[in-house]
Amino acid sequence: MRFSPYCWRTRYALAHKGVAARREPVRFTDKHRIAASGYDRVPVLRDGDEWIGDSWAIAVHLEDRFPGDTLFPGGRGLARLVNTWVDRELHPLILRAILGDIFERIDPADRDYFRRSREERLGGSIESFAARREEFLEQLGPKLAPFETALDETPFLGGGSPAYPDYVLAGTFEWVARASTAALPEPGSRLAEWFGRLRERYRRP
Amino acid sequence: MRFSPYCWRTRYALAHKGVAARREPVRFTDKHRIAASGYDRVPVLRDGDEWIGDSWAIAVHLEDRFPGDTLFPGGRGLARLVNTWVDRELHPLILRAILGDIFERIDPADRDYFRRSREERLGGSIESFAARREEFLEQLGPKLAPFETALDETPFLGGGSPAYPDYVLAGTFEWVARASTAALPEPGSRLAEWFGRLRERYRRP
Repeated sequence: MRFSPYCWRTRYALAHKGVAARREPVRFTDKHRIAASGYDRVPVLRDGDEWIGDSWAIAVHLEDRFPGDTLFPGGRGLARLVNTWVDRELHPLILRAILGDIFERIDPADRDYFRRSREERLGGSIESFAARREEFLEQLGPKLAPFETALDETPFLGGGSPAYPDYVLAGTFEWVARASTAALPEPGSRLAEWFGRLRERYRRP
Repeated sequence: MRFSPYCWRTRYALAHKGVAARREPVRFTDKHRIAASGYDRVPVLRDGDEWIGDSWAIAVHLEDRFPGDTLFPGGRGLARLVNTWVDRELHPLILRAILGDIFERIDPADRDYFRRSREERLGGSIESFAARREEFLEQLGPKLAPFETALDETPFLGGGSPAYPDYVLAGTFEWVARASTAALPEPGSRLAEWFGRLRERYRRP
């Protein structure tokens, strides 16, 4: 199951720039495979002899090194704002909401690692979060509302065509779609229409 | 005391576009003075025979009708995202944190109206919120963090020069500066430096 929201950001950013990259999925328990990069989390990108880690740094690298439409039509500041906001305000809540789903779907080889690391980080058992799934999903609604109003204005957060702020949020929904049965974005919502438009455009990056 | 964060957005937007407008402060208890506009909240803008209410609609109007640098360098979607996010995620928390301060500073003529309307809306006495001031201010820190990281990238949220997303957040801090003794943005922080740069640029819009 390939579900890292951060890897999805990178996949969309590569597709945006029209850069072909060989993809190598890495399990939690396969981290030794990226040891040469000097990073211990995905995504990492190798460009020639250079390794770049962290999805934001990868986006900046792609923007600086590759021609084509900018990833940051509103400047790097606004894109970074959305990036950090989604990471800090949305992901903790979504992770709690879908933790039980992820655990059911995760590669069996990763299961022990996932339980140990997540329960330590979140301070509770997977089952205790799974029991509060609906509560977390309800809290998420108001946090997505600003994105709904933004999409009143323009077809994509990036304007007439998608850009990095779109890929940030799309990465989150790609993660949820793979890791969970949660109906996110809510069917029929403006966000659901936007997500459909984005996927249609890339036919899966 | 002129403290509406939404009026400050409009003042900055007018200054950005270089549009001179006559300002008429309106107290809560003076609302009859804007009755002709068809709106019952400030800001309202009169442009010729047209009244425009709501700070976002005013920004769009200024962008559409006046030449000069765009208010929305990243498109209207991203600006609206920041606008709604600040309204919904920051303002409720800030209002609770500084409610007691506002009540002390408000024009005496507005005091009864303010207490009645705010206590009803927020579901508690002004004093009960004032007692929890520090708690609310602490919760605010993480919500401002994405703005701090954004300002790692560019001098202003709008890039090399300020734009509407900057004015949205600046309006919030102008409100706090007038209505409260709270040290917001935190002195020495990147946000404090940014706010200083913005105010320096406009020398008070």
